[in-house]
Amino acid sequence: MRLNKLPIQVLDHGFVRLIEPWGKGEGKFPDYERGIIEAARQSTQGKFRGWRTDRKLLSTLYTGKHATPFEFAGMVVEVRAPIAVVREWHRHRTQAYNEMSARYAPLPDLKYTPSLDRLLEVNTPDRNKQAGNVGGVELTPARAMSWLRLLEQAYTASEIAYRYGLKMGIAKEIARLPMPVGQYTQMRCQASLRNWLAFLTLRMDPRAQKEIRLYANAVGQIIEHTFPQTWALFQEQP
Amino acid sequence: MRLNKLPIQVLDHGFVRLIEPWGKGEGKFPDYERGIIEAARQSTQGKFRGWRTDRKLLSTLYTGKHATPFEFAGMVVEVRAPIAVVREWHRHRTQAYNEMSARYAPLPDLKYTPSLDRLLEVNTPDRNKQAGNVGGVELTPARAMSWLRLLEQAYTASEIAYRYGLKMGIAKEIARLPMPVGQYTQMRCQASLRNWLAFLTLRMDPRAQKEIRLYANAVGQIIEHTFPQTWALFQEQP
Amino acid sequence: MRLNKLPIQVLDHGFVRLIEPWGKGEGKFPDYERGIIEAARQSTQGKFRGWRTDRKLLSTLYTGKHATPFEFAGMVVEVRAPIAVVREWHRHRTQAYNEMSARYAPLPDLKYTPSLDRLLEVNTPDRNKQAGNVGGVELTPARAMSWLRLLEQAYTASEIAYRYGLKMGIAKEIARLPMPVGQYTQMRCQASLRNWLAFLTLRMDPRAQKEIRLYANAVGQIIEHTFPQTWALFQEQP
Amino acid sequence: MRLNKLPIQVLDHGFVRLIEPWGKGEGKFPDYERGIIEAARQSTQGKFRGWRTDRKLLSTLYTGKHATPFEFAGMVVEVRAPIAVVREWHRHRTQAYNEMSARYAPLPDLKYTPSLDRLLEVNTPDRNKQAGNVGGVELTPARAMSWLRLLEQAYTASEIAYRYGLKMGIAKEIARLPMPVGQYTQMRCQASLRNWLAFLTLRMDPRAQKEIRLYANAVGQIIEHTFPQTWALFQEQP
Repeated sequence: MRLNKLPIQVLDHGFVRLIEPWGKGEGKFPDYERGIIEAARQSTQGKFRGWRTDRKLLSTLYTGKHATPFEFAGMVVEVRAPIAVVREWHRHRTQAYNEMSARYAPLPDLKYTPSLDRLLEVNTPDRNKQAGNVGGVELTPARAMSWLRLLEQAYTASEIAYRYGLKMGIAKEIARLPMPVGQYTQMRCQASLRNWLAFLTLRMDPRAQKEIRLYANAVGQIIEHTFPQTWALFQEQP
Repeated sequence: MRLNKLPIQVLDHGFVRLIEPWGKGEGKFPDYERGIIEAARQSTQGKFRGWRTDRKLLSTLYTGKHATPFEFAGMVVEVRAPIAVVREWHRHRTQAYNEMSARYAPLPDLKYTPSLDRLLEVNTPDRNKQAGNVGGVELTPARAMSWLRLLEQAYTASEIAYRYGLKMGIAKEIARLPMPVGQYTQMRCQASLRNWLAFLTLRMDPRAQKEIRLYANAVGQIIEHTFPQTWALFQEQP
Repeated sequence: MRLNKLPIQVLDHGFVRLIEPWGKGEGKFPDYERGIIEAARQSTQGKFRGWRTDRKLLSTLYTGKHATPFEFAGMVVEVRAPIAVVREWHRHRTQAYNEMSARYAPLPDLKYTPSLDRLLEVNTPDRNKQAGNVGGVELTPARAMSWLRLLEQAYTASEIAYRYGLKMGIAKEIARLPMPVGQYTQMRCQASLRNWLAFLTLRMDPRAQKEIRLYANAVGQIIEHTFPQTWALFQEQP
Repeated sequence: MRLNKLPIQVLDHGFVRLIEPWGKGEGKFPDYERGIIEAARQSTQGKFRGWRTDRKLLSTLYTGKHATPFEFAGMVVEVRAPIAVVREWHRHRTQAYNEMSARYAPLPDLKYTPSLDRLLEVNTPDRNKQAGNVGGVELTPARAMSWLRLLEQAYTASEIAYRYGLKMGIAKEIARLPMPVGQYTQMRCQASLRNWLAFLTLRMDPRAQKEIRLYANAVGQIIEHTFPQTWALFQEQP
C-alpha cells in the first residue's frame, strides 16, 4: 500500500492532509490495521494469523463494540480550516492539537467565503432546522449576493485593523481581536482510530454543521485509504 | 460557610460565576473539601477525623502529589468571555463545556475593547516576548487611540453583516462568519478540583496571555472561598 | 426527594453505596438533574423553565445524543467488591478512583465464595460462550461442591501466608502477593452522569461478566432514585 | 537508528518489549521525535530545520512545559507483569490497554516469587515507610525463607483450585477466583510520549513501589533508545 499524502481540498482555502499513520504492530510492512488485531490477540494469547482469518476477528471486535483494540492504531493529520470549524473540532477532547498561534506568527489573509449555492441551501426543504433563518424573509439570490458584499466589507475592515495594529506595535495577541471566525487557521490533530471514528460518527452525521461535515468526509477518505477494513465495517455500522 | 455566587467581573463585559460546588462527601454541611479527605481515607480504611487532624493529611496529599483524592471535589462555573479567550480555555480537555451556540440564539452585541492601558502595556520592559510587536514602531498613546478606532470600525462592520444576514434569511451558522474573536460568548465549565488547579497552574502563570490570566484569577478567587484549605496549599506550591 | 444512602448489598460481602450526588445547578433544592438542563440552556441562552417543559428538552438531548449536558451532573459512590471485579471496573478511564491500599492497611479477611447456583449457571443453554468450560466435562452439583472445598483451601493458604508475612515483618506490599483476586477490596468512584451511563451500557449488558453486572445493576438502582428522568430515558434507549 | 525490540527482562518472569513507536511526522526516516518538532512548528508556521537548530526548540518546549507537541509521538509496548503491578499500572487513565483475559485463555502457571534480597530490603534504614512491617518483629533470613515456603504453598493451592476448576467445567471467569495477585498476566499499552513521561515521573520515583519501579525503568530504557533527545531532557528535569 502506498500512502497518499496529498492534501484533500475542503471549502475555498482549506484542506486535510495525512501526516503519519501508525498501527503496524510487530509487522514490518505498512499495514496499519495489524496493530489492532495484535492487541486483540493479547486477550487470547494468540498471534496475527493473516488477514483471511483475522478479518473475521476485526469484524467481531467492531460489531461487538470491543473498542480498545482500535486504540492500537491511529494517525496524525494536518488541517487548514476556518476558526468557526476549528472551534467545533476542539470540542473533541480525545484528540491532541497543535494549532498555529497568532501570538507567534501573523495570520495569513485567508478567509472563508461561502459559495452562493451554500447560502441558498438553507431554502431547501430538508434543511436542518437549527440552521433555519430567523428573519422570516425568503433568501433570494440577489439578497445572498448583497450579503456577500457585506461579508467582504467586514472581512476587509478586520484585515485592516489587524495589519495596521501589527505595524503600529499593538501586541499580536491583541491585534487579532477583530479577526473573524471565518479566518483560516491551521493545526495538527492526533488521535487513535477509535477516537477518529467517534469524531466521524458525530461529524459526518447529516445533523452536523455542513462545513465541519465536509472536513469529516475528508478525514473519512484518508481513513478509507489507510485503514480500509475498519472503514468497511464503519460504513456498515457507523 | 455561605457560598458567594455573585459574578466576578472580568474585562469590559465578562464575568466568572460559581454555579455549584461539590465535595461534601458523606458530611451534611457544605464543607466542600471533606470529600477529598474521605476519598483519601479510603486507602487507609479510616474515617474523617475533624479538620484539626485532617488538615495535616490534606497537606501530605497535596505536597506528596497524591492527586486522585482531589478528583473527589469539584465545581461548575459560568463564564462570559471573548471567543479568543474561550479558544484557549477549550484546549483544557479535562473540563466539560456547554457553550452558547450561534446556531440556536443570536449572539449579543458585546465585544471586547481593550483599555488604552492594556494596549500600552506592551511597551513595558518586562513584557512577554511572545506578545512583542512586529512592526518595530513604538506604540504611542495617539497610535493606540487610532487603532481603537479601526477596531471599532471592524467590530461595526461585523455586526452589520451579522445582523443583516440574520434578517435576510442567511443560515445562522453562516451569518456568524464575520463575527470577530473579540465577540463575547458564554459557557458553563465543570471540572474536578484537581483539574481546576491544573488549569490555574498554566493560566495564572505570568507567561500566560493576560486576558485568560484575568479569568484564571477570578476562578482562583472562587476556589479560595469554596475550597480554602486546598487553596492555601496551592498558594505555597502551585 | 430524600436521598437513600443505604448500601445496596451485592454478592456475599459486597455493596454499592451513594456518597454524594451533584447536579443541582443554581437551584436550591436537591434536584440533581437540573444542572443538566441549565447547562443545555446555556446554548440557547434560556433558563430552567420547570420540569413540565424541560422534561421534553431532556428527552431531546438524550435521544439526539447531545451528551455534554449530562456531564453537568454526577455522583460519588463507595464500592466493596472482589479484586477481579474491580480490575474490570478500572478499565473505565473516565471515572476517578481511590481504593484501599494493602500498603497502608491490612486487607480484611473477606473473600468471594460463589453460590452453588452461580457455579451451575454455566450449564444453562443460553450461557455466555466466553464463560464456557474448557474441560468438556459436565459440571455436576457434587463436582461443584468439591471445587468449593478446593477454593476454600486456596483461600485459607493465601490468608495464612498473608497474615504470617505481616507478622514476621515482610513488607506489606510483598506480603499481599498470595492474595487471591476473589479477595474483597473497597474504593470510591466518581464520574459524571454521562460517564456513569456509558459504564452501565457496557456492564449491564447480558454479555458482561455476571459479577460486575450485579454491581452495575446496583449503580443503576442508585441512578434511578437520584436521577429519575434520565434513568427513564436510559431504560428506553440504553 | 535500528530499533531494539528485544524484551527487557523484569523480575523473575516478566518483561517489557517495544512493539511500535511513532512520531516520524512527515519525515521518511525512523526518527521518532521529528513529529514533536513538526507539531510545535505548526504554531509558528515554520518547518523542521534539522536537529542542530531544532534540538534547541525541543529543549524550550520541554523546559517551558509546552506539553502538547509531545502528544505527537508515542509508542506501543508489551508487558508481562504480576497482577499486583498491573493493578497499579492501570490507574494511569491516559494509556490504552489490552490485557490477556482469563475468560478466553487459561492463565500460564507463572507467579512472582520475590528473591531473598528483595524480602530483606525492608530492613534497610532508608526503606519506604509505607512498606514498613507491621508486626514489629525483625525479619531474619530464616524467617524470610520460611515465608517463601508459605507463599509457595499458597501459590500451589491456587493453581490446583484453578486447574481442577477448569477441568471440572467451572466457568473460566469463576475458576480464576483463587488466582493470587502474584500471578503473571500480559498486556499491550499504548500512550503518547507526553503520557509515558508522566507515567515515569510517578513510577520511577523512589517512593513508588519497587516492583512497578523496575518496570518503569525498563520503559525508560526503551524511551532512551527510541526518543533519545527527549530522554536527555527528562533526565535533567523529570
